[in-house]
Amino acid sequence: MARIVVKFGGTSVGDTDRIKNVARKIKAEVERGNQVAAVVSAMSGATNQLVKWVGDVAPLHDAREYDVVVATGEQVTIGLLALALQQLGVQSRSWLSWQLPIRTDAAYGKARIVEIKTAEMACSMAAGEVPIVPGFQGLSPEGRVTTLGRGGSDTSAVALAAALKADRCDIYTDVDGVYTSDPRIVDKARKIDQVTYEEMLEMASQGSKVLQTRSVELAMNHHVRVQVLSSFDEALGSDLPGTMVVDEEEIMAQGLEKAVVSGIAFSKDEAKITVTRVADRPGVAAAIFGPLADANINVDMIVQNVSLDGSSTDITFTVPRADLARAVEQLDRAKADLKFTEIKADTNVAKVSVIGVGMRSHAGVALKMFQTLAGKGINIEVISTSEIKISVLVAAEYTELAVRALHTAYELDATT
Amino acid sequence: MARIVVKFGGTSVGDTDRIKNVARKIKAEVERGNQVAAVVSAMSGATNQLVKWVGDVAPLHDAREYDVVVATGEQVTIGLLALALQQLGVQSRSWLSWQLPIRTDAAYGKARIVEIKTAEMACSMAAGEVPIVPGFQGLSPEGRVTTLGRGGSDTSAVALAAALKADRCDIYTDVDGVYTSDPRIVDKARKIDQVTYEEMLEMASQGSKVLQTRSVELAMNHHVRVQVLSSFDEALGSDLPGTMVVDEEEIMAQGLEKAVVSGIAFSKDEAKITVTRVADRPGVAAAIFGPLADANINVDMIVQNVSLDGSSTDITFTVPRADLARAVEQLDRAKADLKFTEIKADTNVAKVSVIGVGMRSHAGVALKMFQTLAGKGINIEVISTSEIKISVLVAAEYTELAVRALHTAYELDATT
Repeated sequence: MARIVVKFGGTSVGDTDRIKNVARKIKAEVERGNQVAAVVSAMSGATNQLVKWVGDVAPLHDAREYDVVVATGEQVTIGLLALALQQLGVQSRSWLSWQLPIRTDAAYGKARIVEIKTAEMACSMAAGEVPIVPGFQGLSPEGRVTTLGRGGSDTSAVALAAALKADRCDIYTDVDGVYTSDPRIVDKARKIDQVTYEEMLEMASQGSKVLQTRSVELAMNHHVRVQVLSSFDEALGSDLPGTMVVDEEEIMAQGLEKAVVSGIAFSKDEAKITVTRVADRPGVAAAIFGPLADANINVDMIVQNVSLDGSSTDITFTVPRADLARAVEQLDRAKADLKFTEIKADTNVAKVSVIGVGMRSHAGVALKMFQTLAGKGINIEVISTSEIKISVLVAAEYTELAVRALHTAYELDATT
Repeated sequence: MARIVVKFGGTSVGDTDRIKNVARKIKAEVERGNQVAAVVSAMSGATNQLVKWVGDVAPLHDAREYDVVVATGEQVTIGLLALALQQLGVQSRSWLSWQLPIRTDAAYGKARIVEIKTAEMACSMAAGEVPIVPGFQGLSPEGRVTTLGRGGSDTSAVALAAALKADRCDIYTDVDGVYTSDPRIVDKARKIDQVTYEEMLEMASQGSKVLQTRSVELAMNHHVRVQVLSSFDEALGSDLPGTMVVDEEEIMAQGLEKAVVSGIAFSKDEAKITVTRVADRPGVAAAIFGPLADANINVDMIVQNVSLDGSSTDITFTVPRADLARAVEQLDRAKADLKFTEIKADTNVAKVSVIGVGMRSHAGVALKMFQTLAGKGINIEVISTSEIKISVLVAAEYTELAVRALHTAYELDATT
């Protein structure tokens, strides 16, 4: 017998027929002798409608009231799913976040889960009841409704799995797992059976939006084994048909040869900024990035050239494309201090990344990347590396070519 | 300064523009120096959609989960209205029923309010904040969501007004008050400025569906002054443009000549049953009406003729038309015991009622009714009376003629 938390997203519970389908999946897990708790999102479209109403009434809104309105979407789904399970003869009840409670901080609209009380729920699960819990929400210290921000339901599910010490957290979604690259671009992309938290984090933040980054961090910190799988396939989570996200040790313990590189990710949401002829003096980087941090703009890749004339240098970095205009505005304001010649902005770029925990212990991974891109005549504009990732910035039109060439070079192509 | 509870129904908060309109009304009351608390229904159509989803998933549902789903409609409205008020510069916050709490019994789907805690809310009202409370719902003894049954928002508003010892409870709806008769039938129907709880109860149960019967009972028991008025008129509740429902004493204290008859009501939801040649012995009425009560069928008007032959009699009574088939079935089963000859059922009937507390102290009210109907050649099939009401059953096709004639006879016609 295993204790499993299952999570179903908005598409999986998009109408009453799909909710009944979800109930059948849960029933099958229960019939295998498992203890199951479910976390669900709002029916697809519901949250957007609620957010739109709030925007119509108050463009600049009080987040506490926003949360009261938006949290209703999941409340509808938990009641309907509990009813659908009862209809199949499975004992079930819904738990609102204030009933458990799921305690969060007071950051309305983007709260963080602090604690989930599960004593009563665990007791009813032991007696064969399936608890249904709303994702994406909680209870603030002052006793009001909070929401966790978009995509927060994954985080709710992982947090519940951690609190219940569940054997597994199955995230049912509309894809059947994590792939070596985006199958829409790379024909030969393969589903990965197992991936480490670190790799998943890099993939999530690199643009493979299967799991919320926060939920992966939480899973890593609490060693929650997470499976990503499709709610539209026949297979059950217990058949392990999806991708397991686990500790590196767990993969190693299986004695499996771990591929050096697990996947090739890419992102077109970047913009490149070059600030030319900045005074080359101590503190200049802080002078540039301070105003951007103040404006809550994330800077990703950074390159500073060696000073050519001994007194000035060029600094290049990337920001989210959506923040480009604000970033340029911030820098312009600091011009008197920075004394740069020019700000060059370029949105015609893409970031391509090679990810794999194996590169920690293997030399030559970066070299292969550079050779492969050079072999296709692709110019690398910026490079940044971490322990388990090498990212390069290339001109946007080379994205697909670069991703496919790297996918082949690292022997990730499906053989059939 | 007055303390006012205002209630807005589903049509009044049917979309975000209407919610903004409601916020303007509340703001105007606040600017007159009044303390205001608001109770709101779900946006029109929302509850029907939620009920339909429940029906799709589980035709025979667990009322506890039904309540979890259906209660979300009002939760959406309270958040949106609080935001709309803030947008107008009025301090406001929403209170969910578990936050106050609004305690109810455990009759999920049709709960009764037991107690409303208002200490914290009253404190914030004194500081100028407008609390927004969801109608139709509460918290059960075991800490779960309850709903009060359809139309329960009127009851929520009156209960809150009683708990807050409010000076008035303004029920904003889509009609501008209570009329002497249905204006769709009687051209010359007039809006009534003041009506007693007892009259309002008779009108509500007689088919003038302006206020929920339960809310009027509650108002009467707690002496809550209730005003019915239109949310689509410009006038504010404080201008008293609607119909005030108050204690008889309050009307008397004004030294006003109270009309003997306040209104003419009618209902076409009745069916007449005659059981012929029932044994005329002690206990026969109980033998007839016992099985109907067991089947939860309300019997309204009852007439037993004088026994003609000393051994058998005819008994005639009315039941709700929707229950007719079940009522006949119940009687058929009891035939061996009752030994009647025949059951005659007639749905071609209407009940016409003359209502007014003044008839307690005035003779001749009933006589005028009978003369008026006789004057129009309308046959009276059954008569029943209470202290403040005389009802007659007539053939359905005479309904409009009877109502108009009585309206004129009791001098209720508008003069302009």
